[in-house]
Amino acid sequence: MNRSSTRDSLKTIGEFGLIRQLQRQWPTSSPRIVTGIGDDAAMLKTPPGQQLLISTDVLIEGIHFDLNYQTPKDLGWRAGVANLSDIAAMGGTPLYLLVSMALPVRVPPRHIRELYRGIQAACRPFNVELIGGDTSASPSQIFLSLTIMGSTRVNRALTRSNAEIGDHIFVTGTLGDANAGLRILQTHSANRRRPSAVETFLIRRHLRPAPRIHVGQLLANRKLAHAAIDLSDGLSSDIGHVCEDSRVGAEVRATDLPLSSQLRAFARRDKTDPVKIALQGGEDYELLFTAPAKHHQNVLRVSEQTKVPITCIGQIKPKTFGRQLVFPSGRKQKLSIESFRHFNSR
Amino acid sequence: MNRSSTRDSLKTIGEFGLIRQLQRQWPTSSPRIVTGIGDDAAMLKTPPGQQLLISTDVLIEGIHFDLNYQTPKDLGWRAGVANLSDIAAMGGTPLYLLVSMALPVRVPPRHIRELYRGIQAACRPFNVELIGGDTSASPSQIFLSLTIMGSTRVNRALTRSNAEIGDHIFVTGTLGDANAGLRILQTHSANRRRPSAVETFLIRRHLRPAPRIHVGQLLANRKLAHAAIDLSDGLSSDIGHVCEDSRVGAEVRATDLPLSSQLRAFARRDKTDPVKIALQGGEDYELLFTAPAKHHQNVLRVSEQTKVPITCIGQIKPKTFGRQLVFPSGRKQKLSIESFRHFNSR
Repeated sequence: MNRSSTRDSLKTIGEFGLIRQLQRQWPTSSPRIVTGIGDDAAMLKTPPGQQLLISTDVLIEGIHFDLNYQTPKDLGWRAGVANLSDIAAMGGTPLYLLVSMALPVRVPPRHIRELYRGIQAACRPFNVELIGGDTSASPSQIFLSLTIMGSTRVNRALTRSNAEIGDHIFVTGTLGDANAGLRILQTHSANRRRPSAVETFLIRRHLRPAPRIHVGQLLANRKLAHAAIDLSDGLSSDIGHVCEDSRVGAEVRATDLPLSSQLRAFARRDKTDPVKIALQGGEDYELLFTAPAKHHQNVLRVSEQTKVPITCIGQIKPKTFGRQLVFPSGRKQKLSIESFRHFNSR
Repeated sequence: MNRSSTRDSLKTIGEFGLIRQLQRQWPTSSPRIVTGIGDDAAMLKTPPGQQLLISTDVLIEGIHFDLNYQTPKDLGWRAGVANLSDIAAMGGTPLYLLVSMALPVRVPPRHIRELYRGIQAACRPFNVELIGGDTSASPSQIFLSLTIMGSTRVNRALTRSNAEIGDHIFVTGTLGDANAGLRILQTHSANRRRPSAVETFLIRRHLRPAPRIHVGQLLANRKLAHAAIDLSDGLSSDIGHVCEDSRVGAEVRATDLPLSSQLRAFARRDKTDPVKIALQGGEDYELLFTAPAKHHQNVLRVSEQTKVPITCIGQIKPKTFGRQLVFPSGRKQKLSIESFRHFNSR
């Protein structure tokens, strides 16, 4: 049961063997955890004066990922970040993770260990503890389901529903890189040439997004932001969630969207509009948040302290204004929620 | 987006439409929940003096279930009970549930609503609140991932690792019925005749298992039991987990295993051994627990109060004894963990 050679398979090590291997790989030791993996349920203490946060994400082979152009470790990293990012968007501190997967027998156990290493690598800077999960066979696709728990100080969490008219709208990092990176990966396996420096940058932004935990924590603890969300579906869609839940409108200035020079270079060569990629390209895992005008300078100070770029891209407006992208020419364009995404694409 | 006719499909209602429909179907109102579904993470208060429990289960079409012989509502019920049962085995009170699913487009939304109704029906007696989840498309199989949270009083949880030599071993209910019910369902679609009363009973035991929450709570709160586990893999396997984690052995008396008259009738007709079904048949979701001899009568009182049969089936022995099934003739048989189950079967 303990063999770790490349010749082992799910059939020989079995479900319990796999769980034991993974437990050894990611041992838990936190005094916050009374019982971790291995019982019917994990048992936890809540840090005093804190509220618990919990969020869950599924990742399906052929829908959310394709191991033809990413390694199992890349996949693990992205899965970890997708979850960490939900805690970041609440201004929280990540604490515990549960990892469930269903695996076809074709997947070699070393790939599963690599996948775990990727999740673990994304979580390591935040001392997140693995406290549970489930494993199963799967008839065809790999299914991943991660559940993350975190905490915030009572009444300090950043929700989607507190944006106020007049708030400045900010985003972290640059937008659209991850989507451009994905497009390169999807077409690259066909032409097989060595990626350029621009392509390498964008691919890495897709494969190794950074969770904005520290930005979220500072915004929450210093009470700088009114509302926040992480950009997992794309700005156009995600700002819609904030507006709907806060019953407000939004004006976004097209020229102020933070675009990397690499995205611009990619868009030029690909004859596409970089603004469109920035608006619709999902999975940047950057934060979008709103803050009152009086905190504008304090927000920029968070950027200096965390070394994460933060850009003001617009303003919260009354609900009747709708959600609009404005260009310097005065032209306006509606920002719409693309709600059919996962059920239509691929 | 609000249409509920049978002509709606995942493509027309979309992911967000589906989430909104399900939110309306299972509204949350508990003061324990600060923010429920709809933000990046749910926010929770921990009941004072309590420890939190968390557990997660995946259910894959073609591995754990087959909609050819169970309705979506049946599936939802079983998925709910599989999770509730983990909390029962800790002696806990179930509180919150997260439901994630990945669905092929062939699944009609009314089936998804039925599936939710089944989960909800299983959880209703315990006022469990739906606080989150995720939905996605799936290329072929239905994939379900449920995460349940609960609580116990500090230091009262029933773990797998506290069984002591001399403890009496108890089980709730009758064993093997669910597995016999599954066998009937799997063969029944072939012959299509009306099921007999015996078959109907066993099928129902498979489709609608009962979570033993109240038994677990009384055992934990009255400090009657040393260790507990729920029977999801089958007695033979699950008692092995308790023995391994508690570093003890066990003697189980074959004649004391609680078998329903229906299981005996089924086994007679099917020319199989009902004891073998009781030992290896999984997914009964009954509790197995160990209690010191001095609490034997108090344990039986729990049975009277909860109207759940509880039977003493053996005794915890030193580790060197191993795990043995004993027959009146004196014959002994080893009880082994079948660890390859999900990766080998089907």
